[in-house]
Amino acid sequence: MNHPVPPAAVNPRRPFPADLATALKTAFGERVSMSEAVRAHHGRDESPFDPVPPDAVVFAQSTDDVRTAVELCGRYGVPIIPYGNGSSLEGHLLAVEGGVSIDLSGMNRVLSINAEDLTATVEAGVSRKALNEALRDTGLFFPIDPGADASIGGMSATRASGTNAVRYGTMRENVLGLTVVLADGRIVTTGTRARKSSAGYDLTRLFVGSEGTLGVITEITVRLYPLPEAVSAAVCAFPTMGDAVRTVIETIQLGVPVARVEFVDALAIRAINRHSNMTLTESPTLFFEFHGTDASVAEQAERVQEIAAEHAGSGFAWATRPEERSRLWNARHNAYFAMLQLKPGSRALSTDVCVPISRLAECVVETEEDLRGSPLPCPIVGHVGDGNFHICMLIDPAKPAELAEAERLNRRVVERALRMDGTCTGEHGVGLHKMGFLLDEHGADAIGVMRAVKHALDPRNLMNPGKIFSYDA
Amino acid sequence: MNHPVPPAAVNPRRPFPADLATALKTAFGERVSMSEAVRAHHGRDESPFDPVPPDAVVFAQSTDDVRTAVELCGRYGVPIIPYGNGSSLEGHLLAVEGGVSIDLSGMNRVLSINAEDLTATVEAGVSRKALNEALRDTGLFFPIDPGADASIGGMSATRASGTNAVRYGTMRENVLGLTVVLADGRIVTTGTRARKSSAGYDLTRLFVGSEGTLGVITEITVRLYPLPEAVSAAVCAFPTMGDAVRTVIETIQLGVPVARVEFVDALAIRAINRHSNMTLTESPTLFFEFHGTDASVAEQAERVQEIAAEHAGSGFAWATRPEERSRLWNARHNAYFAMLQLKPGSRALSTDVCVPISRLAECVVETEEDLRGSPLPCPIVGHVGDGNFHICMLIDPAKPAELAEAERLNRRVVERALRMDGTCTGEHGVGLHKMGFLLDEHGADAIGVMRAVKHALDPRNLMNPGKIFSYDA
Repeated sequence: MNHPVPPAAVNPRRPFPADLATALKTAFGERVSMSEAVRAHHGRDESPFDPVPPDAVVFAQSTDDVRTAVELCGRYGVPIIPYGNGSSLEGHLLAVEGGVSIDLSGMNRVLSINAEDLTATVEAGVSRKALNEALRDTGLFFPIDPGADASIGGMSATRASGTNAVRYGTMRENVLGLTVVLADGRIVTTGTRARKSSAGYDLTRLFVGSEGTLGVITEITVRLYPLPEAVSAAVCAFPTMGDAVRTVIETIQLGVPVARVEFVDALAIRAINRHSNMTLTESPTLFFEFHGTDASVAEQAERVQEIAAEHAGSGFAWATRPEERSRLWNARHNAYFAMLQLKPGSRALSTDVCVPISRLAECVVETEEDLRGSPLPCPIVGHVGDGNFHICMLIDPAKPAELAEAERLNRRVVERALRMDGTCTGEHGVGLHKMGFLLDEHGADAIGVMRAVKHALDPRNLMNPGKIFSYDA
Repeated sequence: MNHPVPPAAVNPRRPFPADLATALKTAFGERVSMSEAVRAHHGRDESPFDPVPPDAVVFAQSTDDVRTAVELCGRYGVPIIPYGNGSSLEGHLLAVEGGVSIDLSGMNRVLSINAEDLTATVEAGVSRKALNEALRDTGLFFPIDPGADASIGGMSATRASGTNAVRYGTMRENVLGLTVVLADGRIVTTGTRARKSSAGYDLTRLFVGSEGTLGVITEITVRLYPLPEAVSAAVCAFPTMGDAVRTVIETIQLGVPVARVEFVDALAIRAINRHSNMTLTESPTLFFEFHGTDASVAEQAERVQEIAAEHAGSGFAWATRPEERSRLWNARHNAYFAMLQLKPGSRALSTDVCVPISRLAECVVETEEDLRGSPLPCPIVGHVGDGNFHICMLIDPAKPAELAEAERLNRRVVERALRMDGTCTGEHGVGLHKMGFLLDEHGADAIGVMRAVKHALDPRNLMNPGKIFSYDA
């Protein structure tokens, strides 16, 4: 890929003093690396940007390790970039101003599971799958599923969500409290394990979504949910995107408590059929999952089938047995890899707009028309119950013109979403990539408030600098 | 009542220059008042504190009015206190450093209802009942119900909740976006109408619960919900508080989606029986409400009845018809006035702790023992599905010793809740009354972060000064 970070977006790389290197080695021994391979690995994420390696990588094993690293970096004015599982999508991890990457993947302990309270406290490096593995015998689960096996710390930092958010909310709703190392090395805890509180400013929500720019999240208390007694799945094809989306809108408006409702367009279905050797109708399709008691999932599926029928949905297939459900949902789960094979050797760039659901049909249909004129294969999948959808633009990494075309399409869909009172990012975050869009979305005064908060908590701009918005107005 | 604000808690009253009075009169004419009666009315709330009147009251009718008032006050360094319906409980509205109260009750327009998106945008002075009245023909409702007919602006500012939070969340989960006038007169909008977003710092959640100390909230976009197809209610008596609370814990843990579950202790039931001429068993009692389809509310009620039976619950009465439901819930709704009549001429002071549900039984039982030793009648009611309960301490306003006893009991229950990883306030906020508890709950470093944010957004301490935490460390 040849997509350098735009130089205007960030300040110059800061010096990395030899004294700091020595101090880090003294403090961390084998757990600090300055090797080219390790640095290169930590200077990239799943974004289209060329890697920008940090100067060193510290492998933290405790909140105290993080504090030590932050204090040492602070002494020399060197930036800090928290690193979880490397699955972020918008350039969050690139060391654009140099600095030290703090790899939290070694902080992988589930510290406590409180089954009675439906909470768990984990270190930041615990991945969502690892947490669910730890919950296996409790009858509980952690529902947030952004696709990648992201770390809970990273998911908190980007305010992630995914397929289950329509029923269970996003990280915003599911983080109860945090331990955070601030820029000056102080360690604060936010929130309590109580389900609600009116005790002062909502620091938890301030750090959730702050993308490492206000502090390093080291521990997280999250909400858990009882595994549903019954789960059923359904899939249904529609003649047009509009019909599919109107089915979703009505489902939500009637208050049917769907656990998942995913949209997959005809091109993505074609990709899935090829990849998984399936014979789904190659037209816009909805995948549903229902959670509840036996009676309630049956009722939900029937209700949705009625709504789908009113919108010309056909071939409504409904499955309650696990193997049948897997068969239906496999198609959705494999969509990403299937889509990549539409264009061998390609890389997918994903848009991430989210609009009010009343505008979703209009937004998707306009977008579909727009994409028709593009030379890039652009399948669409979406968490449509939230109004969130992704265009997976397949580009040849060796062709700058294709990247430019993808950026053009992205810009157009963001402008469309903002016009419809939506957001440029439903779940991926801003990172390096959407700083301009953020300004369009919120306006200079709201960005000014964010900047004032940043200046107050990180007056030397040490925490993941160059991300979300420019430090200087 | 003789309960002056502790002088150590706040800075001295600031001067109110005659020039500002003149400027306000020029700008607002009849819509500014300096009469003693109007000032006295705006210097009180439902807290036990003696009123502290502002120097003037501006009756705002628009965001621009608020900006004008804020800018004029800013010019003279005079504080601003936003005023909704006056129903706050912790001294939020008292003009402890003097200043201008901005009465937002005239900003009472429902600006838009987006039935398809399940959102409404309202001016800050719209009360929750007025919003639900405006929604009458839409099939939707706004669920947050703190008891009082509070303004949506005030509910946002205190992060209010109430009986429905166990199912629908609090103001934290139900505010999508805000319009806020900042201390320097800038107007910012936060959030969008999209259901989720990862676009930058969560300014919406920063202002929700900030109690007027970071800006004046003038418009709010909230989430709405479809009216449930079916509603049923149930009431059940238990031999002990522990049995009742354990029933709640199991109900929540099994994931039964109760819409409301309220605890009322034996003393409160006695009060209700006298007041409403009812014959409820005078023992710890749970009131339930179930929302869903006909089948699902039946299923929920049956499930809860089974759980209650395992915990010695008796006389489980279940009602689906509206008049039967009203009969059951009337008892709970009238509890406050009924309790006041346990001690004629008394005033109720309410505690507001919230603990993890696993500790709720222990917390309530210890509290019950504690109260047994007190001369004050202290019935307990609670939103127990959230782990939140209130002791209504009935005191004679003319007897300082009774107030002191109530404060002693409050202190003990807060200490107990904090020891159990809970919060000093589940839904009432901090105001003047819980500033010390806030420090105990979060620690000096977390309060330091809140203070840094306050300093950044309100560097002259003009916005509702003297509340939540002290401005100077």
